[in-house]
Amino acid sequence: MEETIDALIGDIASGQTADGYFNIHYQSVEMSERFTRRSDHELYCAGHLMEAAVAYYQATGKGRLLNIMRKYADYIEDVFKNNPRPEHFQTPGHQEIELALVKLNAATGERRYLELAKFFIDKRGLSEGEKQTNAGWYGPTYAQDHLPAREQTTAEGHSVRALYFFAGMADIALAFNDTALKSACEAIFDNIVNKRMYVTGGLGGNYHGESFSYDYDLPNELAYAETCASIAFVFFAQRMFLLTGDVKYIDAMELMIYNAVPAGLSASGDAFFYTNPLESHPERRERFSKLAHGQFNPENQRPGDFNCSCCPPNVIRLFASLKGYMYHSGENRIYINLYGSSETAYGGLRITQRTNYPFDGGVTVTLRAEKPVEMAVYLRVPGWCGSYAKEHAGNARIENGYIVLNREWRGTETIKLNFDMPVTEIYAHPAAHYNAGRVAVKRGPVVYCAEGADNGGALLKSAVIKKEANYRLTAVDGLTMLAPGGLTVIDCDAMFPHNADGMALYATAPMLYENAALRLIPYAYWANRGANEMNVWILKERNF
Amino acid sequence: MEETIDALIGDIASGQTADGYFNIHYQSVEMSERFTRRSDHELYCAGHLMEAAVAYYQATGKGRLLNIMRKYADYIEDVFKNNPRPEHFQTPGHQEIELALVKLNAATGERRYLELAKFFIDKRGLSEGEKQTNAGWYGPTYAQDHLPAREQTTAEGHSVRALYFFAGMADIALAFNDTALKSACEAIFDNIVNKRMYVTGGLGGNYHGESFSYDYDLPNELAYAETCASIAFVFFAQRMFLLTGDVKYIDAMELMIYNAVPAGLSASGDAFFYTNPLESHPERRERFSKLAHGQFNPENQRPGDFNCSCCPPNVIRLFASLKGYMYHSGENRIYINLYGSSETAYGGLRITQRTNYPFDGGVTVTLRAEKPVEMAVYLRVPGWCGSYAKEHAGNARIENGYIVLNREWRGTETIKLNFDMPVTEIYAHPAAHYNAGRVAVKRGPVVYCAEGADNGGALLKSAVIKKEANYRLTAVDGLTMLAPGGLTVIDCDAMFPHNADGMALYATAPMLYENAALRLIPYAYWANRGANEMNVWILKERNF
Repeated sequence: MEETIDALIGDIASGQTADGYFNIHYQSVEMSERFTRRSDHELYCAGHLMEAAVAYYQATGKGRLLNIMRKYADYIEDVFKNNPRPEHFQTPGHQEIELALVKLNAATGERRYLELAKFFIDKRGLSEGEKQTNAGWYGPTYAQDHLPAREQTTAEGHSVRALYFFAGMADIALAFNDTALKSACEAIFDNIVNKRMYVTGGLGGNYHGESFSYDYDLPNELAYAETCASIAFVFFAQRMFLLTGDVKYIDAMELMIYNAVPAGLSASGDAFFYTNPLESHPERRERFSKLAHGQFNPENQRPGDFNCSCCPPNVIRLFASLKGYMYHSGENRIYINLYGSSETAYGGLRITQRTNYPFDGGVTVTLRAEKPVEMAVYLRVPGWCGSYAKEHAGNARIENGYIVLNREWRGTETIKLNFDMPVTEIYAHPAAHYNAGRVAVKRGPVVYCAEGADNGGALLKSAVIKKEANYRLTAVDGLTMLAPGGLTVIDCDAMFPHNADGMALYATAPMLYENAALRLIPYAYWANRGANEMNVWILKERNF
Repeated sequence: MEETIDALIGDIASGQTADGYFNIHYQSVEMSERFTRRSDHELYCAGHLMEAAVAYYQATGKGRLLNIMRKYADYIEDVFKNNPRPEHFQTPGHQEIELALVKLNAATGERRYLELAKFFIDKRGLSEGEKQTNAGWYGPTYAQDHLPAREQTTAEGHSVRALYFFAGMADIALAFNDTALKSACEAIFDNIVNKRMYVTGGLGGNYHGESFSYDYDLPNELAYAETCASIAFVFFAQRMFLLTGDVKYIDAMELMIYNAVPAGLSASGDAFFYTNPLESHPERRERFSKLAHGQFNPENQRPGDFNCSCCPPNVIRLFASLKGYMYHSGENRIYINLYGSSETAYGGLRITQRTNYPFDGGVTVTLRAEKPVEMAVYLRVPGWCGSYAKEHAGNARIENGYIVLNREWRGTETIKLNFDMPVTEIYAHPAAHYNAGRVAVKRGPVVYCAEGADNGGALLKSAVIKKEANYRLTAVDGLTMLAPGGLTVIDCDAMFPHNADGMALYATAPMLYENAALRLIPYAYWANRGANEMNVWILKERNF
């Protein structure tokens, strides 16, 4: 792979213009038009290539692509910031370069890149002309041009644009200790998780404009919930954790990582969802697909490629860099933020996790010190967890959602955690009216769904979980690389319409139900067994 | 009005070409292109003008427009049937002329018009080229080109095109005693009422293509349910009654006339709905409106005019001709098919109805014979009615859904009917999954809905009708010309979410409910009090 990449970098080097610009389309077709069409993703592509350059440098120590992209970044700084061209747009139509410039600064130590990122964030929402760029169907909110960054308090517009922007804002808030920007980020984050997020972590309730909708408007079948949006939320949440140290950001990140994000990837690892609905009827999907200009998948299954293929590499990238989200280190301290079998090392301490989390609450953490080392180890207590057991030597304190073991480590020591992981029923706010009378079933951080393949092709929107559901767990072999230790399905007592075929379209007598078990599988694993119905929010029997 | 119309007819006469053609656009802009663009509604417009000519002739006895349209019909016969032009399409993209030619035949006695109608029906679905006319997003079913008429058994494609077509098929089946066409009509009708009709009588479950969807696919919020489709269904049902004498066609017609059709008209009588959803949230409507290229009403209220204004004159026309659907006469027999205060006369018998139907099941029918007359009077027992009382002189027999009084009438006689009209809860087939766990409330032929204006702006999709609903009736002043005697609203015992503002987006505890009355109004009267929520299918408490 390194050889292939080096060859590609050679091509990029020879293709780059003398001034530093690099974009195949504009160079080949219309060089004079560069940076004049704001919605053409020019700076978005530049940003992703900068991120690639940084990642390749970190992985291999090779700096050739990094230098190419520095030269491009210098050119961008010149034509946007130092000597702005009147014919150019002022801020990118699709944010991404902000994040990338922060990474470029981290990799190179060149502060100008950080300041250029801040420049793009500061300018957003100030130009009346740019407010109109996407003003047709979408309005200025589409690309977060409705207000300056520091005045924004809600998540608006195209969800991926928005979340890349918010992640960049958090980066700048941290780098410049910008409290106004930090407050805006906090308000926006709370707006998302308290009012505009699917129970799966999906983001973007409005398929029109692939965007956030208004508070509580979270249609299940018409969810847009782009895979990239939940990935971008992970970026945002990680930065908010760095900015505030608040564990709530990790809780929200964990929800994404076990639900909305992996739902974008097939069990086979080579097919992808762009949109992630919470309810699907194969016959209806085709209609939505036509309506939404093809961005819903007619087959109700993940295709192998897309015309607009942002999500596939993004989901692969996230899983490849997962360890960076699991562990966080500070001065003489290390945070274990996410659980999962893995190894890392920091400050003379080697840390190993062995667990079948998220399908089992038991986690064994082994710490090995070659020589005695002072270290505070922070072990996250997941926000969904009501009670847990722990076994370890020495004393622990509980601090802001963490079990903290702060002492000198010697030789090999073991910490055993066991997070109670009962099945819970989740009720939605009544204004999220699509879910009225229904529950979502969750265990630990994992949201479950019912799929036709397990339930005789039954009418899953009409099935009812009994008042006494008697939830039962069954471990089954893993479907994917994401659950090498197998996964846990849930069976429960439910009722299904009796003799549906014989029923009238409209009847004055209530339909009869018959008892049967309903099987639920982790939401992230749906659509791996051919086209069939899927449903997250299930009717719940209730005596008021 | 007659003066205005006569002036317009004069304009049409002077505008008509020597060969008989008349269409302002083509004559003004592109005469050489006439009848070459199948989806341009040329024959549709010709058909409506023929119907207008017949109506004006029947109302005034004036034949000038009738003669103009005969000349146009003769031209159409020549260029489509007798000497077909290869450059022309073969059947209209939007049916309507078939119905019109049958009426033209009835008004003129000219059998060629009937045969031309049959010609268009017979040719449909046979041309491979025409099957592709609308094949882009919609496919050949869009304009019912997927199969020849006699092989169609389901209602497919654009619902108004389909229903005009089916009405024309029924006309031709009757005129030519065509049993294959009759069987097709019967199968299609059954498919509609048993699998593809909203509880309100709305038709067209798929806003994509303004069309019928597959069996049981009846989304409430995204219902297309065009006003014109339910009107066209009335035409179809009337002809099926004439063809078969089966009262079930009148039952279905009655559902339309009290629900889906008048919902298209405002209380003020001057504003109109094109689409008639069964659930509406004002903020969401705007999004759907954009999605559906403006054909949903952003304001959630009836506008006064439309770019495509088929529905407004159609609903006005239907109400103006309502008496023709209420009464039907045959040899020595008269059918009272629909109840409502009205008068008519046939065969020496003057018939008067006095009633507040559909809000009261009591109907007084007075028959006045100047001199003794033999007549069988058929009084329909509505299909929704489980029991009734009647008072009249002489004997009655019950025959195929009618109370039949067959005798000699003398002087003035009175028949008193009282149809029991309890409130009923309607349950939908479980495959119509949008309604799972929910009921629609109906009384007599009238379907009810909840509207925010009556219910404190409550979250109506999350409200629950109690198991013991204790339905209570209240007569209120009429809102419109459609209920001059006032209308009846229904109150019932229900539960609403308690303290919704304070609730989390997702919670593990069930939400609390508090008891309160829920008010329901007739569906046809919704959206007359400003933008607010509306919901037909309401959650129902149930102990299984």
